[in-house]
Amino acid sequence: MAQLGLTERELHAWRTSFRMVELLRARIEQQLQATSGLSNADYTVLVLLAEAPGRRMRSYELAQTAGWEKSRMHHQLTRMSRRGLVTREPCGSRGIHAVLTTEGLSALRKAVPGHAQEVRRLFVDRLTPEELEQFAGLAAKILDNLEEGEPLTNDAPDS
Amino acid sequence: MAQLGLTERELHAWRTSFRMVELLRARIEQQLQATSGLSNADYTVLVLLAEAPGRRMRSYELAQTAGWEKSRMHHQLTRMSRRGLVTREPCGSRGIHAVLTTEGLSALRKAVPGHAQEVRRLFVDRLTPEELEQFAGLAAKILDNLEEGEPLTNDAPDS
Repeated sequence: MAQLGLTERELHAWRTSFRMVELLRARIEQQLQATSGLSNADYTVLVLLAEAPGRRMRSYELAQTAGWEKSRMHHQLTRMSRRGLVTREPCGSRGIHAVLTTEGLSALRKAVPGHAQEVRRLFVDRLTPEELEQFAGLAAKILDNLEEGEPLTNDAPDS
Repeated sequence: MAQLGLTERELHAWRTSFRMVELLRARIEQQLQATSGLSNADYTVLVLLAEAPGRRMRSYELAQTAGWEKSRMHHQLTRMSRRGLVTREPCGSRGIHAVLTTEGLSALRKAVPGHAQEVRRLFVDRLTPEELEQFAGLAAKILDNLEEGEPLTNDAPDS
């Protein structure tokens, strides 16, 4: 494993952690898709808009908050507006507002209870309250650095 | 947030953790795609085969080990064989062996150093050795339960 540039310990920690990342993400999306036809990306956008003042956000702000490249958010919003979950309204000279529709809000409201139950079942209830805080603290340390990077241009994880 | 069925603390811990999960997974795939044209799913299959005796595994075993549903592995192997990364050989009465090709092995060998460097940059070096062990330990607790679930049928996360 010398070639890998990681020690056996590091490689083992990585493989366990990444396998958890892959399975957790996929199972959360599987439950969302099966019960509401929403992807993790759809859900993220719906929650951000539902919690924004006036249930609207500038497209570029939405991209920044989600950590996505602008064009990726553009494609996501195009897909979602085709399904009537959001609309887009020009704002100012060149900006675009993404606006949550009544359909989008009701799709989110329908999805929330089952999603929350799945989050509890797969994540929250697997750890003690102390472990949950510990995990979130370590996740935040990793996240700080991830968020300094370039915004995500790669559609693959959600498309 | 009562509607969410999660306390504020739990919801905050989940959102931080899941955002890390999403960004880490996407950035790892972004680096792989950009430098070697491989997805996380391709990489997983290549590593499993490269480490298997004779660089071959029964397709259903490969699916079990990856935690995927059989049909998902079937589609993944079809895509990879079109690209010459693997071949499929009948074994026994009804089994199929996935076999790593020379092209597959060299694609993996080309990808490994940059991937390992990215794993170190985004994950290993963000934590102290103690924190890394702690994170992997908590990840393993979550993983135990995820692996008890149904195998993954949802292609979305990798396709």
